[in-house]
Parts: sequence; C-alpha cells; structure tokens
Amino acid sequence: MAKGITTRAVDYSRWYTDVIAMAQLADYSPVKGCMVIRPHGYALWEQMRDALDRMFKETGHVNAYFPLFIPKSFLSREAEHVEGFAKECAVVTHSRLKKNPDENSPEKIIVDESSRLEEELVIRPTSETIIWAMYQKWIQSYRDLPILINQWANVVRWEMRTRLFLRTTEFLWQEGHTAHATPEEGEAETLKILEVYRQFAEDYMAIPVYVGIKTESEKFAGADRTYCIEAMMQDCKALQAGTSHNLGQNFAKAFDVTYQSEDGKRSYVWATSWGVSTRLIGAIIMTHSDDNGLVLPPAIAPIQIVLVPIWKDDTEKAKVMQMTTEITSDWKGRIRFTIDQRDNYRPGWKFNEWEKKGIPLRIEIGPREVENRQVVLASRDNGEKQILSIDGLTDKLVHELTVIQKRLYDKALEFRNSHTFLVNDYAEFKKRIEAPDGFFLAHWCGEAACEARLQEETKATIRCIPLNAPVESGKCLLCGKDSFRRVIMAKAY
Amino acid sequence: MAKGITTRAVDYSRWYTDVIAMAQLADYSPVKGCMVIRPHGYALWEQMRDALDRMFKETGHVNAYFPLFIPKSFLSREAEHVEGFAKECAVVTHSRLKKNPDENSPEKIIVDESSRLEEELVIRPTSETIIWAMYQKWIQSYRDLPILINQWANVVRWEMRTRLFLRTTEFLWQEGHTAHATPEEGEAETLKILEVYRQFAEDYMAIPVYVGIKTESEKFAGADRTYCIEAMMQDCKALQAGTSHNLGQNFAKAFDVTYQSEDGKRSYVWATSWGVSTRLIGAIIMTHSDDNGLVLPPAIAPIQIVLVPIWKDDTEKAKVMQMTTEITSDWKGRIRFTIDQRDNYRPGWKFNEWEKKGIPLRIEIGPREVENRQVVLASRDNGEKQILSIDGLTDKLVHELTVIQKRLYDKALEFRNSHTFLVNDYAEFKKRIEAPDGFFLAHWCGEAACEARLQEETKATIRCIPLNAPVESGKCLLCGKDSFRRVIMAKAY
Repeated sequence: MAKGITTRAVDYSRWYTDVIAMAQLADYSPVKGCMVIRPHGYALWEQMRDALDRMFKETGHVNAYFPLFIPKSFLSREAEHVEGFAKECAVVTHSRLKKNPDENSPEKIIVDESSRLEEELVIRPTSETIIWAMYQKWIQSYRDLPILINQWANVVRWEMRTRLFLRTTEFLWQEGHTAHATPEEGEAETLKILEVYRQFAEDYMAIPVYVGIKTESEKFAGADRTYCIEAMMQDCKALQAGTSHNLGQNFAKAFDVTYQSEDGKRSYVWATSWGVSTRLIGAIIMTHSDDNGLVLPPAIAPIQIVLVPIWKDDTEKAKVMQMTTEITSDWKGRIRFTIDQRDNYRPGWKFNEWEKKGIPLRIEIGPREVENRQVVLASRDNGEKQILSIDGLTDKLVHELTVIQKRLYDKALEFRNSHTFLVNDYAEFKKRIEAPDGFFLAHWCGEAACEARLQEETKATIRCIPLNAPVESGKCLLCGKDSFRRVIMAKAY
Repeated sequence: MAKGITTRAVDYSRWYTDVIAMAQLADYSPVKGCMVIRPHGYALWEQMRDALDRMFKETGHVNAYFPLFIPKSFLSREAEHVEGFAKECAVVTHSRLKKNPDENSPEKIIVDESSRLEEELVIRPTSETIIWAMYQKWIQSYRDLPILINQWANVVRWEMRTRLFLRTTEFLWQEGHTAHATPEEGEAETLKILEVYRQFAEDYMAIPVYVGIKTESEKFAGADRTYCIEAMMQDCKALQAGTSHNLGQNFAKAFDVTYQSEDGKRSYVWATSWGVSTRLIGAIIMTHSDDNGLVLPPAIAPIQIVLVPIWKDDTEKAKVMQMTTEITSDWKGRIRFTIDQRDNYRPGWKFNEWEKKGIPLRIEIGPREVENRQVVLASRDNGEKQILSIDGLTDKLVHELTVIQKRLYDKALEFRNSHTFLVNDYAEFKKRIEAPDGFFLAHWCGEAACEARLQEETKATIRCIPLNAPVESGKCLLCGKDSFRRVIMAKAY
C-alpha cells in the first residue's frame, strides 16, 4: 500500500479521494461543491478534450461559444426542461456590491440592492435554451441546415452531495447542439455521436462501455430519446459516461425555429444535443487505478514516459544526462515525456511520486545503464521491470505504450464481463445488488411503476436498454409480466 | 464597397459591427451585454489560444482550472481589489427556481426564496482571490515555488455600454497567476510574460505594439505595477492588448501565503498575474480589415487558403476536383485550407463570402486552369491576382502566406508610426486628439492631478510610459512643470 492511499478493500470511497489527492488531480475549493482542477488533472482533461475535439471536427462539427447566462424566462419555455433543472440553478439577481454603511458590521461589503436585475439570470446548467434562441435567428432556409455546433464550457448544477469529478456544482464539459431538416438526420446524428463516445471511451480511455437507450424516466429533460454509454467501475457500480439526446422538435417548437424547404414549405427543425464532462476523469480513476494510486491509459496520459536520471556526482550526471538527451532526441511528436532532473529529491521519492500520478512508463538511467547502453523500464500498471538496450528504443517504447493501452482495456473488459450476470429472481437480485457484485441483465416489463419500485427497494436503476439486446421472452423481474428483452440494472454514481 | 458593410469613412463604428456580422464572427445574444461567438470567430480564437498556450508552456507554465464562483468575503480581502471590481459584479444569491404559485401571473417560474445562499457568490471578474486562497493551501516551502499556473476561462464584468469583442459582460480570456520566492523573480516573470504578449501581438496578430508601464491610476486593482502592450487602431484610438501585473506581496498578505526558505525563515510570497482576452479579436479586426470586410493575418487565420473549384457540368467537375485533390495532397499539416464545393452557390457569391470572412488567399480552379496546369491566386489583403503553375505550388503558397503576414505587419507599423507624434503644446494636442488623428508622445510631470485633468478635458488617457523612452528634459503638457520623459497619450477603447 502506498503512503497516503487507503486501500480499496478498506474503504473504496476514501481510496478514490486519496488517489485524487496523491496524484494532485484536484483539490477541494473554499466554494461549496466546487473543486479546483490542478495542473496534472487539467493536463489529463486537455488530452481528453483534444482527442474528442478532433473526433468532432472529423465528423463535420465546429465549435462556438454561447453566453454563460440564461434569462429565467428562456429556461422556462420548454416545460419538461425547466422541470428537470429548476431545483439546481445558480441564480444571478444583482450586478453590484457596495461598502456596508454599517461600519460596525463584520460584513464589510454587501450586495447593492439598487442593482437588482429586471429579470434573473440562471447560470447555464446546459445550453439548449440559449442556443435555440440563437438558432431561431440563424435558421431560415434548408440551406442553413444542418447546424453542427459544439461548445466547450463550464456549467453549474447546484448539487447537494458532491464528489470530486463525479458530481460537482461547477464542471467542465462539451455540449453539442445540432439542427436538422428531417427526423432521420436527427436520429442519425444522435447515433453518430453515440458511436464517437463509444470509440473515445474504449480506444482512448480504455473503458469498455455498454451502449444503450435510457428509459423514459431516465431520459434528458426535454428529449424524445436519450442514448448513453455506461461503464462499470471497480466497485461494480455504473457510471454514465456520455449521453446523446434526440430532442425531436421540442426545442424548435419552444423557440419557434422553422425552416423553408426547397419546395417552399415551412417546418419545425429537428434537434439533437450530447455531452461528456470532467466526470469522465472519475471514470478513468475508478476503472484503472490501484492501491498504489492513479493508473493512466497511455492514449490520454499527459505524460506517457517519465525519465529519472540517477547520479551521485557531477561526472556521473554529465554522462547520464548525455545518454538521456541522446535517447529522447527523436521523441518529440511521438512520445509525451518529461525528464525529472530535480536535484532536491531522491530517485526513490521520484519513483513514488510518478507512480501515484499514474505515468504509464518510467525509465531509470544511472551510471550502470550508461555503461551498458541500456535502460530500466518499469510499467505502472503491472509493476514489471525490463532492461532494454537503447538500440531502436523509441520504436520499442511506442510499441510498449500500445501494449499497455490494450492491456488496460482487456483487463477492464474482463472485469466487466465477469461481473455482468443474467438474473431472473428478484430475491437473488436484491441480495446481490446490495454490495453490489455486478451489473444485472434482467427482464423488465417496460412499466414506470416497476422501475420506480426497483429504485425504491434496491437503490438500483435501469442503466439502459442495450441497443444490441437480443429478443428474448421472459418475465419482468419485479411484476412477472411478459418482457421481450433484458435491461441493465445496476447501482450508479 | 461590399454589400452589407458601411465604409470606414462613413461610419467607423458601424463598419466595425458590419465587418463582424458579415464575417459571422459573433452575434448579439438575448442576454444583455453578452455575445455569441460564432464558429468562424471561435475558430479564430482557437488559433490564438493555441499559439499563446504553446508560448506559455514553452516558458514553463501549466494550466489549471479554478471555480467560477468567488465568495463575496474573498473578493473583499484585498482592499484595492474589491474597490476595483465591486461595481461590476454578477452576484449569485439563490440556488433554486420554482413554479409560481400565482397561476394568473405571466411569470410561470420564480426564484425560490427559501434557497437564499448564506453567503453571496460573485462570478469571477478575475481570479486572484480564489487562486490565492488555494495557494495558501499549496505553498509551504521554497520547494513549492515557483508556481506558474495559467487558466483559460470565462469571466464576467457587468458593463453598462458593451461592444462586440471589445467590451462584453462575459468574455473569454487566459489569466496567469504565479507565485515566487523573491521580488526579483516576480518582476522577471512579469516582464517575461510582457515579452510573450509583445511577440504574440507582433508575430501572430501582425499588430505592432507599444510596450510600457501603466500610471498609478491606470494600474490593476491590487497590483504594485502594471505593464501593458498598447496597439493603435485604424481610427487612431488605442486598444490595450494585454497586461502583466507585478502584484508584489499584496495578495500573499491578504491571504496569508508564506513559505519557509532553505534556511528556515518564513516570508510572504511574491505574485504576478497577467491576461489577454477575446477583445484581441477586436484589435485584429480594427488593425487589418478594410471596407470589403475582415482581413486575417495568415498566422492565426483558421483557414489560410480557400479553394473554389469552378465547373459547368459533371465532366468539368470531375477534372477540376481531380486537380484540386492533386494540388492539396501535401497540404495537411502545412496549410489550413478548405475546399468550397457547395453546389447551391455560384463562384462569385463564394468569392464574396470568403472575402468578407478574411481568408488570406483564394485559389480559383476552373477547366482552363486544369488545361494549363495552373491556378488563379487572389490575395485578400491587397486584392491582387496572380497565375501560378501547379509545379512546386505548396512551397510557393507557404511562402506567399509569410509574405502576406509581413505585409500586414509592415502596413500596420507604417500606419502607427506615421500617426504617432511628438506634441508639446496643449492647445494643439486638444485640437488633434478630438478626432483623434494619432497617438501623442508628450511630457507629463507624473502628478495624478494632471492625468485626471487630461482625461476630463480631452477624454484621452495616458496609455503607458514606454519602457524604452529616452530620458529627455521637458515641461508637462498640462501644468508646465519639469518632466524627464514622454508618455503616450491617446483616446482608447
């Protein structure tokens, strides 16, 4: 066990926050429910953001930026939407502070009541309403469609119980908002993005996901259909890792957005929205990390290899640094790396620090390695060490990084598959979901009442109806009525 | 004159907003004072952000993210700081909305008064206070220094009179916040960033800048010294294009941030902060654009070359597209380009659209060009056309882009230099600053009273005391007292 990190067996929840603290990913801020994303955490987010951004651009999307503020009346236009967000809104009511005229008060500065706004502004919890107000201006004709806009932004949802990365009052995310001429195009876009999310989760974050559709009660407030990817954490709880919504014409109607087709007919526009957020960092932590700290997949690790040169005196240092420079000379653009030459820390301390920070590979170079023209290579994920000749080292390391990437994915997939069970008996399910010991594929009749009962009695939810679920006759786990396919039931973050 | 764009001679201010509208850089939002940055504007910002971000990282800085919200009491800790920002703060006071129990009211949704916050939160106008509250946790020893953190974020300052890009209630920016062991390091950092800003302005945005220090009355609220770069717009008004603040120990003292030195002594930490914002987009527009619309410097143009293939039928189209593909085959990674193959617009319409969007080079390829293995190349900035053989075209185009970059800079420099004047007579100054017809290098005694009088009587301000100003004896333009160097006086945005 690493110093400062509670083991998973002892306290999973403490382990999670310890890993974050020791890797310096984030810190609690003095603002209730808000966290600070520290440089290592932010560098990770930058890698994730850049990879996703490339994928969005390759599929024809462009970025834009819309206001942080949403007039209260806009949020109210789509009935289900405001219902979904009203209870967790940061509301701006004033625009000035002033000196407290009461000089004896400990409160030196107070809100200037004369600056009360005519209409309150809500900090965006999501931007459908402000964006569709703009689309109303921008869309006239079929020529203006499709609009394929994405936004990288901060959003605020006033959460009562918060957890670093997983649930914070303010978080960073991307939100795509598209407008289309036909429902078919809207549905195709929703599914295209779902596939982008699946690829990103599996190929970059090395997190296998179930792809499915949310039930009516779990869908986005204002959507016709919500698709999602769901991942299994090491404690067998589910984490929703991305959602793609088919909004139908709901927002087009709420904001009166119509277009004229080639044959002169006016119709409401079709919409989608989709997003992933910094909560994905929580998913990465809880999928790959271990009792020694963070483990990062090479594809998104801000630093893929750390080199720790080791010396006792200046003569050794010169030799060691010379070989370090030599072997890294062709890394730029191929490997993200850093050379830890800090004088005031010992090698062992450095090894430990980089281990906790989850850097996939560590290279040790001391005088003996220089002598033998070789390096010691240590893998973060399995702790193995190898000795490698420096001949053709760059290619070997690039290969090793892909090997690690695959190993992490395979391990996570193996874990998830071996913890996904068919279950047909409610009593058995109730017992096994307690801890929980997995995801459960169970029959469900489709009734909201059974879904509500499930949540009430077990705290589990229907995570999704898998898209590839085979047709299979069965009986609802709760009421015993006929069912034709299984859904995924699990406890969730 | 381009359709939809008022000429500069007729109405400079209208011209500015017309250029933005026609280039689709930004749009007014329904939220007072807030704008929407449209895809073309945001793509430009991404280019600027990425270039600056590289420069920050190359000089040892890392990114992080701090909360949007600042508790009111934090903002109040540094006396000058709160004084500077209190009058333009968006204040969050509640966390929930609810249905209006009065069903007859047109206001369906109202603020839930029971959700009143214990302490009001201010949307960050700048983040010194929240960041120094964190530095207080993070800094213990000299080993923790320096901290060289930058943040890319949105900030809010409640402005009464707003203008697209130049002054908006919400804007995007970067803010660097560094902590150092010694005042010398703090000053060196402040100047290092000032130099980064100068380079960015001149090498990327092609905007020549004066580098200087702000007067006491113009410095940042909470700084010991504020350095700045100042640019001249085409109407001879100044635009502050970046500021770098030496904060001394002001925030360290306000937030009690001390460190223990190697010899065990505790001292307050030294600080800097620095930032540039989306207002730089306004500077680009007003430095380079003309009556036909936007003109972008190639170094930051999101699209450097647009190719417009021209055809009458499918046979021609096939040939034209084949050559288009051929000549662009080695552009990826060297030239940012787009091929405008839209079927539903004519070439002339396309030329006009890309011209208004400021794309530096346009390539026209029709059947005749295919026949002759050549292309027509049109430069946005001077309107010149050339015919180029496709042999070695890529290198020629890359070179042409650098030529344009230099031409834009030289033109702006020539304009600025020919509109910067020495002035010794206040009556003459008052007359010439009216319109204004330039920047004025004038003697100033150093007294705040003269500075205040200058602003009151002429609406001009002292933009900065140039860093490289030679020592020169003279008399204050206003009071006639002794002065030893000239300062820059101008009207400003």
